[in-house]
Amino acid sequence: MHIKDKLAEAERSRKPVFSFEFFPPKTAQGVQNLYDRMDRMHDLGPAFVDVTWGAGGSRSELTCEMVNTAQTIYGLETCMHLTCTDMEKQKVDDALKSAYSAGCSNILALRGDPPRENEKWQAVEGGFQYAQDLVKYIKARYGDHFDIGVAGYPEGCDDQRDQEILMKHLKEKVDVGGTFIVTQMFYDVEIFLSWVEKVRAYGITVPIVPGIMPIQTHAAFLRRATWSKCHIPQKWLDALEPIKNDDAQVREAGKGLVAEMCRKIIDAGIMQLHFYTMNLAQATRMVLEELDLVPKDGTPTNRVLPWRQSLGLNRREEDVRPIFWKNRNKSYVARTQDWDEFPNGRWGDARSPAFGELDAYDSGLKGTNEQNMKLWGKPESLRDVANLFVRFLEGKLQSLPWSEAAVTSEAETIRSELISLNRRGLLTITSQPSVNGVKSTHPVHGWGPKGGYVYQKAYIELLISPQLISELIARIERQANMTYYAVTKDGSLRTNAPSESPNAVTWGVFPGKEIVQPTIVETLSFLAWKDEAYHLGTDWAKCYPASSASRQLIESIMNTWYLVNIVDNDFHQTHAIFSLFENLEVEDLDKPAMNDHRSNGFHSPIANGEVHK
Amino acid sequence: MHIKDKLAEAERSRKPVFSFEFFPPKTAQGVQNLYDRMDRMHDLGPAFVDVTWGAGGSRSELTCEMVNTAQTIYGLETCMHLTCTDMEKQKVDDALKSAYSAGCSNILALRGDPPRENEKWQAVEGGFQYAQDLVKYIKARYGDHFDIGVAGYPEGCDDQRDQEILMKHLKEKVDVGGTFIVTQMFYDVEIFLSWVEKVRAYGITVPIVPGIMPIQTHAAFLRRATWSKCHIPQKWLDALEPIKNDDAQVREAGKGLVAEMCRKIIDAGIMQLHFYTMNLAQATRMVLEELDLVPKDGTPTNRVLPWRQSLGLNRREEDVRPIFWKNRNKSYVARTQDWDEFPNGRWGDARSPAFGELDAYDSGLKGTNEQNMKLWGKPESLRDVANLFVRFLEGKLQSLPWSEAAVTSEAETIRSELISLNRRGLLTITSQPSVNGVKSTHPVHGWGPKGGYVYQKAYIELLISPQLISELIARIERQANMTYYAVTKDGSLRTNAPSESPNAVTWGVFPGKEIVQPTIVETLSFLAWKDEAYHLGTDWAKCYPASSASRQLIESIMNTWYLVNIVDNDFHQTHAIFSLFENLEVEDLDKPAMNDHRSNGFHSPIANGEVHK
Repeated sequence: MHIKDKLAEAERSRKPVFSFEFFPPKTAQGVQNLYDRMDRMHDLGPAFVDVTWGAGGSRSELTCEMVNTAQTIYGLETCMHLTCTDMEKQKVDDALKSAYSAGCSNILALRGDPPRENEKWQAVEGGFQYAQDLVKYIKARYGDHFDIGVAGYPEGCDDQRDQEILMKHLKEKVDVGGTFIVTQMFYDVEIFLSWVEKVRAYGITVPIVPGIMPIQTHAAFLRRATWSKCHIPQKWLDALEPIKNDDAQVREAGKGLVAEMCRKIIDAGIMQLHFYTMNLAQATRMVLEELDLVPKDGTPTNRVLPWRQSLGLNRREEDVRPIFWKNRNKSYVARTQDWDEFPNGRWGDARSPAFGELDAYDSGLKGTNEQNMKLWGKPESLRDVANLFVRFLEGKLQSLPWSEAAVTSEAETIRSELISLNRRGLLTITSQPSVNGVKSTHPVHGWGPKGGYVYQKAYIELLISPQLISELIARIERQANMTYYAVTKDGSLRTNAPSESPNAVTWGVFPGKEIVQPTIVETLSFLAWKDEAYHLGTDWAKCYPASSASRQLIESIMNTWYLVNIVDNDFHQTHAIFSLFENLEVEDLDKPAMNDHRSNGFHSPIANGEVHK
Repeated sequence: MHIKDKLAEAERSRKPVFSFEFFPPKTAQGVQNLYDRMDRMHDLGPAFVDVTWGAGGSRSELTCEMVNTAQTIYGLETCMHLTCTDMEKQKVDDALKSAYSAGCSNILALRGDPPRENEKWQAVEGGFQYAQDLVKYIKARYGDHFDIGVAGYPEGCDDQRDQEILMKHLKEKVDVGGTFIVTQMFYDVEIFLSWVEKVRAYGITVPIVPGIMPIQTHAAFLRRATWSKCHIPQKWLDALEPIKNDDAQVREAGKGLVAEMCRKIIDAGIMQLHFYTMNLAQATRMVLEELDLVPKDGTPTNRVLPWRQSLGLNRREEDVRPIFWKNRNKSYVARTQDWDEFPNGRWGDARSPAFGELDAYDSGLKGTNEQNMKLWGKPESLRDVANLFVRFLEGKLQSLPWSEAAVTSEAETIRSELISLNRRGLLTITSQPSVNGVKSTHPVHGWGPKGGYVYQKAYIELLISPQLISELIARIERQANMTYYAVTKDGSLRTNAPSESPNAVTWGVFPGKEIVQPTIVETLSFLAWKDEAYHLGTDWAKCYPASSASRQLIESIMNTWYLVNIVDNDFHQTHAIFSLFENLEVEDLDKPAMNDHRSNGFHSPIANGEVHK
């Protein structure tokens, strides 16, 4: 969606919106941390995010990657910065193509900072001299695909402080296609507002998005103001100087000062705020909270679907996914990125035939061996493994190989049953409770437009010991309303599903709409997920030395246990799915893993399904 | 679906199935009556129906039309008879093409009866001599598209009674592609069963479908037996002779005799019965009831969808329709017959852009002017019109211009509200009550596979006087959960629907399936229906002489009243939709219609929506 349309909507409805700017971090770990932060900051509800241009080599590739990730994985409407500095036409072409392929439709076209070693900036051979050249070029190549923003300088820019010349340039940039203006940071709201008046007087009518720099520390505050040559009101200096050595106090006081500035901007009728986050969340969130612009604690973010939508190319209409990747959103997006069409309305008719190979994508286990060993310890018995699952469900462990993020409040109503299963060695991978028509505004289960009702069928997916599989399947098959799929690592599949067709396990009924059914269970995608699930476990095993008990243990589970999913199709039942497991428990939970296969109780399949009661 | 597959399923499950044979009636009224009868006989649950070949001219065209109607409108799996008698190859080609286009996939290939004037039958130039030639030809032209049945003669046929020769012919017909055998009628079950043994001994293994002729009257019984040269057991003659002048007694006794014969057939392991209905329902139904093969009173027929599915070409997967044609199934099928694809799973993605023109199809008012005047009288005031609607809802009137069939039990829970509306001059065209998840086996609202739950949003469509429209719309718009469309004859549309997208008003949730949403409300199809609705009213007006008060009255309604549909999107509400109309009543209900426009109260729109309280 074009930023200009979001801004127009904000001005029309008089409801302020805000956006976040990020820059490409210098290290791989920094990138990962930033992604996690962007993911969490999605819940604050930004209208869009900006990713600055990392001039030169791998830094510019990182900008492209970040735009793609923000847009497709985290579903953030993203604006890519693009500068002329040191940019050949080919590089501009590559960047635009990459943005296009990512589903990005917004560019902030900048001239860019001059490289430090040169006094005066010069266009490279075949490159662009002014931002307006870039705007013209993007329009010529992509028509109206990209919405193009341009920079505004209320207090002048590095090599040009003459406001007459700057105003003329601004007008030219807008005249050739710029549809909104993002300003440099400032701390003096009077300067900004009088500049806005001048811009309007000059005949420039597009929305102006003020750049807001929250205050993280006193030192950074001063450094940035100096670097940007922006004026600091005496009041701010007076307020911050006495507490400059206490970062917490500085942030607290800074929050008040910045929020006061924002309020004046909003009161002046400007309904958008652009935050220079400096890749940090706290100071920005504090300002937004002070301004009462974030969802209240306990109030649900207005979720469009139960899972985070992608804004990737051709993905905006996507509204159906298999449940299996519920806790592995990124991997699902990666493994389906080559699809031409995405399921829309229902699974059946739009899905491409194949999931991407595991190795080709970002679908393996995150983190280094050391990090993972630290996180998950060195399990030496099934009990140790089971306890990891229990601790995850208790909220004491932030991730498992099969779950990228901590357990959510959705599991609350079935948490004790899930914990009981795992204590008995029935290792739960994914689950959802049944929901029989709660309002779409429900704080835990709600999603979609107001005035609707949402539903879920109870679902559980587990790793099941070969000791128990026969008995479990016999029990499932005695139930009229349960359907299951059970598969081994090598793909031998058993199911009682009535047909190849998908089973909708989450759906919603809304005023004036067809039924929305965003989550399904289905054979082919379960088999694709199976590969990933066993692969993740094997990756985990490989974190430990080859001859270690931990590796033996985990590999043995991966080699012999079943991956089973179960749906209770009667969504009026709340806990029936758990009674399937009554008195089921894995034997020898405490037996230490040993290197001798034959003596290792937990990996010898017992064909007749012997049950420990 | 191929008959051979249905027969195989019946034999596998040991559950007897039955089929009905119809022939092309001689008069247009006869055709209409037969269609109505076929429609009702659908509810008995036949595995398929046969339509005999009307040799010569318009009679063969009528066979093709009947096959098309049975298949596409009534959703009956149909088998078309095709004979060689007097048939040039071109006519065979035409008939096969027509059957193919109708979605028919079963042919009974017959040599046919010799024309009466010739002693000995001769193939026409370029035609076929034997049924097996026809079988071969159909296989060569259509491969496996058509399942092909052939005739068997347990007591010989007209010009050949030598069982050795007949058996040889039968074997040849099966060898070249016949997959099932339908026998001539018989009354002596011992003859039939010993013939079956001979067929099997001859190495013919395809299913044999015995032809059963129920007894309608004594005279017809004897005539048909004589004509078919079939043996009547003495017991039958003894039982029927004493009561031969009492048709009712004959049918009653005949029912017992035929049912006894059928039981012996079933006991011998033959799981299919083919009834020569002679285009009558009663005697056949009596036999089926005696055999306990029909759904019990009050037991729902196992409805696949809330509306009758079509089995027309490319239509077998169709499972979404607009609600507007709920009472005009035939017209909907006709107006969409040129679509390449039919909505499947959801409305959005499969619909062709256009509905067929009204005039081009069978979408006008049924019946002659005289019949309609007799049916609906000569209304001279709005009260008279309103009373017709009230009588229809009370079950005292079998049809209205907008409803081809009598009101169904579905309306029971909202009948008194509907009657109250119509008494006040708010003329209801279609409606459905809300249903908040009843079992799919529910006797009134149920449809779809067992183990599911079905839902409906309350829906009502009415003709609304211009006096009341503004007030009604104002009331609807005050409700958070109501969506409406209001349109005039000339197409001026008002709506509060949130988007162009369809609104699912009926849906079902079933084990192991995506959500099924068979009925929707949507703009474009409502506009297509609007044309039909006003056209039907105008057709009705034209039943009356040009200067008559009735014509003036009805035309005036058509020219000035609004067609309005309303959905209560909160399907938890059972009667909220009716509170919209509290104290609304059309003025001057009793004012006689007059020829002077200006003095005629009911057709002068009152812009400010004056309300009679």
